[in-house]
Amino acid sequence: MPQAEPVGVIGAGTFGTAMANLLALNTEVMVYSRSEELAERLNREGFRFGVKLHERVTVVNDFSLVAERCQLIFPIVPSDAFRSMMRSITDHLRPNHVLIHGTKGLDVTGIQEDQIRTRGIERKNVHTMTDVIRQESVVVRVGALTGPNLARELLDGQPSASVIASKFDEVIDRAKLVLKSHQLHVFGTHDMLGAELAGVLKNVIALGSGILKGVGLGKNIQAMLITRGLVEMVHFGQALGSDKRAFFGTAGIGDLIATATSKKSRNYMFGYRIGSGETLAEVAATSPELAEGVRTLMITRHLARSMRLRVPITEMLYQIVFEGHPVNEAMNYLITYPYDVDVDFL
Amino acid sequence: MPQAEPVGVIGAGTFGTAMANLLALNTEVMVYSRSEELAERLNREGFRFGVKLHERVTVVNDFSLVAERCQLIFPIVPSDAFRSMMRSITDHLRPNHVLIHGTKGLDVTGIQEDQIRTRGIERKNVHTMTDVIRQESVVVRVGALTGPNLARELLDGQPSASVIASKFDEVIDRAKLVLKSHQLHVFGTHDMLGAELAGVLKNVIALGSGILKGVGLGKNIQAMLITRGLVEMVHFGQALGSDKRAFFGTAGIGDLIATATSKKSRNYMFGYRIGSGETLAEVAATSPELAEGVRTLMITRHLARSMRLRVPITEMLYQIVFEGHPVNEAMNYLITYPYDVDVDFL
Repeated sequence: MPQAEPVGVIGAGTFGTAMANLLALNTEVMVYSRSEELAERLNREGFRFGVKLHERVTVVNDFSLVAERCQLIFPIVPSDAFRSMMRSITDHLRPNHVLIHGTKGLDVTGIQEDQIRTRGIERKNVHTMTDVIRQESVVVRVGALTGPNLARELLDGQPSASVIASKFDEVIDRAKLVLKSHQLHVFGTHDMLGAELAGVLKNVIALGSGILKGVGLGKNIQAMLITRGLVEMVHFGQALGSDKRAFFGTAGIGDLIATATSKKSRNYMFGYRIGSGETLAEVAATSPELAEGVRTLMITRHLARSMRLRVPITEMLYQIVFEGHPVNEAMNYLITYPYDVDVDFL
Repeated sequence: MPQAEPVGVIGAGTFGTAMANLLALNTEVMVYSRSEELAERLNREGFRFGVKLHERVTVVNDFSLVAERCQLIFPIVPSDAFRSMMRSITDHLRPNHVLIHGTKGLDVTGIQEDQIRTRGIERKNVHTMTDVIRQESVVVRVGALTGPNLARELLDGQPSASVIASKFDEVIDRAKLVLKSHQLHVFGTHDMLGAELAGVLKNVIALGSGILKGVGLGKNIQAMLITRGLVEMVHFGQALGSDKRAFFGTAGIGDLIATATSKKSRNYMFGYRIGSGETLAEVAATSPELAEGVRTLMITRHLARSMRLRVPITEMLYQIVFEGHPVNEAMNYLITYPYDVDVDFL
C-alpha cells in the first residue's frame, strides 16, 4: 500500500461511512462524529449500517484530534446542518487544511427556512457548501466530492466513479491519491461551481423521476423528464454563474442517472412515495430525515421565481410536493408543455 | 379530431405497430407488411402483440396502395433488411413522398456481413437509413423518428417523447401534425445525422449497461458506463461527420437512459443475458431476432479500427460479446482505464 496522507471525515452518516471505508483502502482515516455515544459505540462494535468498518478507520468525538492529524478533511453532513458544523470546528482549522465536502444541498442565510415559502428568497441568500467553508473558516483550498455515489452501493462494495471538483490542481491530486482504488475511479474537474450545482440540482429531478414511477409510468417518460431536467439544471447553473461542462460529465449526467433511476436513492424514493399517493407530511412523519432534494426543491423554486428563471419542471414538482397539486394533471402538463426546442444550450 | 393527412407505416413489428396506433389517434394509417398472411390475419383479428389495433389502422400487403394514398410514410424495419425493403418498394415512390424512418441501425455495402470480422470495414461501407433511402429512391425529403421509444411501453399506452430529425422544416412540421397527442410529445431537430447516429450508437451502450446488471453490479457503475458511453457516442458521431447537439437532447441522452435502464429494451436484455453467463451463440439460438445493438457493435468496432478512433467501451464490449473475453476482467478494465479527463467535448 502506498504511504498516503491520513485523512479526516466529518459525519458518520451513510455516505460519510461509505467514504471512510473507501479511503481506508489507501490510508488511515479519522471520522469525526458530534455524538460521543455514537463514536464510542462505533469504535467498540466496529460495524455501521450493517457493514464492518475498515480497521484503519477510527471514530472520534473530538475534532481537534482530526485537525491535528489530518490536513485533508472531507465534511459530509446534511446541508441544513453544514454551517453550524463549520462554526463548531472553525477554531481548529488552519489555512493549510484542505476541505473537500460531499454534501449535495444548498445553504440559506438571512431568512428563516420556514419563511421561505411565504417571503421568497434571493440570490444573495443562497450559498454552496464551498461558499460556506470559505465564509466560516480560514481554509482556502476547498473542493467538492461528487458523482454517482449511492451510499448503500458503496457500503456494499460496489464499484463507482467520483469527481473531485476544485480550482486547485493540488486539491484534485491529493484527493485522487487517497481515493483511487479498484472500487473507485476518480475524475477531476476545475468547474467546481458547476459540479457542486449539478450534484445539488439533480436531486430535484430524481425526486420527479420517482414520482413518475410511483404513479406507474414507464421508462420513456422518465427518460424525457431526466433529459428535460438536465436542460433545466444547466439553465439554473448558468444563471447562478457556473459553467456547463460539469453538467455533461460524471458529476452531472452520471450522478443524475444513478440517483434518478435507483430505489437506493433517498430522493427517488421520496418521489416514489409522493407518486404513490402519500403527502409530504405523511412521508416526513415516517422518515428519519427528509431527502436533500425536498429542501433543494423549496429553495430553488423560490430562487427561480425571484430571478425570473423559466423552470417548468421545478415549478411542477413544487406544486405537487408542497401544494398538493394532483400528480396526474401535472404529468399531463409535463407532456404538453410547449418547450421551444429540444436542446438549446450548446 | 383535426383532418390530418393519411400516413403509411412500413413494417408491422413492435415499434411499427406502436407507431401505427399512435398515428391513428390523429389520422388514417396504412401499414404495409411484406407478409400476405400476416396482413390478412391482422385485418381479420385486429390484435397485434396483445394490443388492439386502432380502428383507423389498415394492414395491406400491396405497397402500391400505400404509395398512392399516403405521401408521408414511416419505414420501420430492421436495419439489415432496410435496403432490400427500399429496393422492393422504390418503383412506387415519387419525389413528393416524404420518408421518415424509425430504424436504429446501420447499413453495410461492399462486403458480406459475415466477413466484417475478418476483413474489417471502412467509412465508405457504412450508411445511415436516410442514406439508404436517398441511394435507393427518388425521395428527397427524408427524416428520422427517434427518441426514448420503448415499443412495449408505447403499445401499452404509456406516454413518451419523440424527436423528428430532418433538414426540412416541412418534414418536421408534417410529422408533428400526425404524431402529437396526449401520449406523445414531439420535438424537432435539424441535426439529422446526429439524431440518427445517437439512436444507433446508444444501443451498444445499452447492451453494456445490461451486461453490468447481469453481472450483478449496481447503479453507480452503470451510470458511469452510460456517461462515458455518451462521450464515446459523441466522439464517434463527430468522426462520422455529425454535429453533437442531438446527442445531448431527447434523441441522445433521453433515448440512452430509457434503453440502457429498462428490461423492456431488447438491447439491455441481450446484455443482461451475456452478463449472466450466456454466450452470443446461446442467446442467438433462443431469440427470434438479435438486438440491433449486437450488429451495430460489430460494425462500429471495426469501423473505429479503420478510422483509428479511440473507443475503449466499444472495444471492451466487442471483446466480451464476440471474443468471449471474461466479463469481470473487462469491468475492471472499465474502472481503471486512464480516461484523460471527464468530459472533453464541450
